[in-house]
Amino acid sequence: MNDTFLKVLRGEQTSYTPIWIMRQAGRYLPEYRQVREGVDFLTLCKTPELAAKVTFQPVDILGVDAAILFSDILIPVEAMGMKLAFSEKHGPSLAEPIRSRSLVERLSVPDPEDDLPFVLETVKILKAGLKVPLIGFAGAPFTLATYMIEGGGSRNFLNTKKMMYQNHGLFGGLMTKITDTVTAYLRAQIRAGADAVQLFDTWAGVLSPDDYRAYALPYVKQIIKELKGEGAPIIYFVNGCAGLLKEIKASGAVAIGVDWRIDIGEAAKKLGKRFVVQGNLDPCALMMSPADFRPKVREILEKAKPAKGHIFNLGHGILPEIPVDNAKALVDIVHELSGKGGRVS
Amino acid sequence: MNDTFLKVLRGEQTSYTPIWIMRQAGRYLPEYRQVREGVDFLTLCKTPELAAKVTFQPVDILGVDAAILFSDILIPVEAMGMKLAFSEKHGPSLAEPIRSRSLVERLSVPDPEDDLPFVLETVKILKAGLKVPLIGFAGAPFTLATYMIEGGGSRNFLNTKKMMYQNHGLFGGLMTKITDTVTAYLRAQIRAGADAVQLFDTWAGVLSPDDYRAYALPYVKQIIKELKGEGAPIIYFVNGCAGLLKEIKASGAVAIGVDWRIDIGEAAKKLGKRFVVQGNLDPCALMMSPADFRPKVREILEKAKPAKGHIFNLGHGILPEIPVDNAKALVDIVHELSGKGGRVS
Repeated sequence: MNDTFLKVLRGEQTSYTPIWIMRQAGRYLPEYRQVREGVDFLTLCKTPELAAKVTFQPVDILGVDAAILFSDILIPVEAMGMKLAFSEKHGPSLAEPIRSRSLVERLSVPDPEDDLPFVLETVKILKAGLKVPLIGFAGAPFTLATYMIEGGGSRNFLNTKKMMYQNHGLFGGLMTKITDTVTAYLRAQIRAGADAVQLFDTWAGVLSPDDYRAYALPYVKQIIKELKGEGAPIIYFVNGCAGLLKEIKASGAVAIGVDWRIDIGEAAKKLGKRFVVQGNLDPCALMMSPADFRPKVREILEKAKPAKGHIFNLGHGILPEIPVDNAKALVDIVHELSGKGGRVS
Repeated sequence: MNDTFLKVLRGEQTSYTPIWIMRQAGRYLPEYRQVREGVDFLTLCKTPELAAKVTFQPVDILGVDAAILFSDILIPVEAMGMKLAFSEKHGPSLAEPIRSRSLVERLSVPDPEDDLPFVLETVKILKAGLKVPLIGFAGAPFTLATYMIEGGGSRNFLNTKKMMYQNHGLFGGLMTKITDTVTAYLRAQIRAGADAVQLFDTWAGVLSPDDYRAYALPYVKQIIKELKGEGAPIIYFVNGCAGLLKEIKASGAVAIGVDWRIDIGEAAKKLGKRFVVQGNLDPCALMMSPADFRPKVREILEKAKPAKGHIFNLGHGILPEIPVDNAKALVDIVHELSGKGGRVS
């Protein structure tokens, strides 16, 4: 078992910097595309053997130091009672966006064992086969709320902010149901075997710091507090975190995932020595040749040194256009430059 | 003449905080929509009497302290030789995206007097009628390059970054032509009568600080340096600036426009006492009632006090969905809370 990733999260010294890649199981891999040829995205998420298969792929192909459960942040939202669809072109859509009290009331808080058994089954298959730690995950409440209120992706998140600003009670009621859902869902993933969990706050970066503190952070804090007793370290990733780091410090997470639009050294400095940082190469940098992105990797490794620990990652998900060989090279370069040398993990 | 806006830019004391609003001439105004009923967007930009008419509208209706020339950042790009179109649904598109040497070579550096006379004519009409200062503007080179390379808006700016990373010579050649275009264009606006100019770097926030320093900032510095002698103060607005402020300090601008995803007090602190700050209420906050957004306005005014000066604005353009009365109330609240009281400007 290569537990370098978990050691960093526990604050222990390691002989090199571990790396995993957001969306490492994905369309840039021919082996993933092959699985997808026979099955649509939602079916893949809900078929444990297949979801496990694509989760294993990047561990074998790239040599990353952690696996992340293959799923989608909207899977538990569907289990709350919304009709979910994915289109290759327009991304996810949720029918009947939540903009009224009656729609909030109709949402349920799913029981993971009964309503999302395929996820827990996937976790169990993975735990039996993985030689690296398994990361479970969920969307953070504000991010899930944006999809539920907008009915899909959005440009300005106007409906979300409208509800947030104009109808505190309704927004709070929705956020509470999401928070309860995410808490139970992550707890179940941990109890099924996930070694760590990551909360993805993909859209919290569209909030001003004041609004983030009022409308997003409290729910994240609650989830992290409730899961403390489960023993799995929690990584909190906020996309567009540069203006929010002071607030993010209060989340309670042991590790903070950082996007690429801030210097990771500055982020580490702002967060202070209590936090492990994760990140933060621009996903587009992998369009360069490995010789050309190598200096960028070196700089990130250097700059992250003052933090309590560093887990290398991209600043957001890997893009479908990235050559697999470049992703492999990234893993090798991180390992080599951070001192893995000839050691076999 | 109400020159409060210019006084702040010159570092002088004023009796209240001036305000203007990005996209203040726009679809949220019924009077603007009425003009647009008879004419498409590009024709409006190119018809001086009409462009001037919609520029005057928000000054009369809202009582803002500055007017901004009605135009689009892609107007000079069209004059460089690209075919520009606007669709209500998909926004701007540029035919034959610039991805090869031959296409870069084919681009010209327009002479504003010959190739963009309608803009200068609009400026002259405005200067003759305005009782507030006139702001000219242009897109910053990186932002214009993204449209030219992607052929329109983008999600990940992969083509832009691909050229930037893989073909320094080609990217540099394109950026130099854009920089020369923007410099001449802003100089002509100033000489025609613009009292100040704003450079809009709408997409620079998708770059890591290192990449911003290497691929975007040098061209901004060059423009600002070349325009120093013209005597018009320059405001540099970077959307998504939170992680880039250290770099932005080197731009040479007297005022920095700040989006809403950072605390304006933190931004002012990072920029230091040499800079006027402009911003930064979340455009969506104007969905609230004036009584509800009033405390947010007060907080921004308080937090911006340590800066050399403060020009109130939204953190990005006003949205078409905003009630006009709320925009009016914003102007009144800023004036009242910052001490304008009964004074008539």
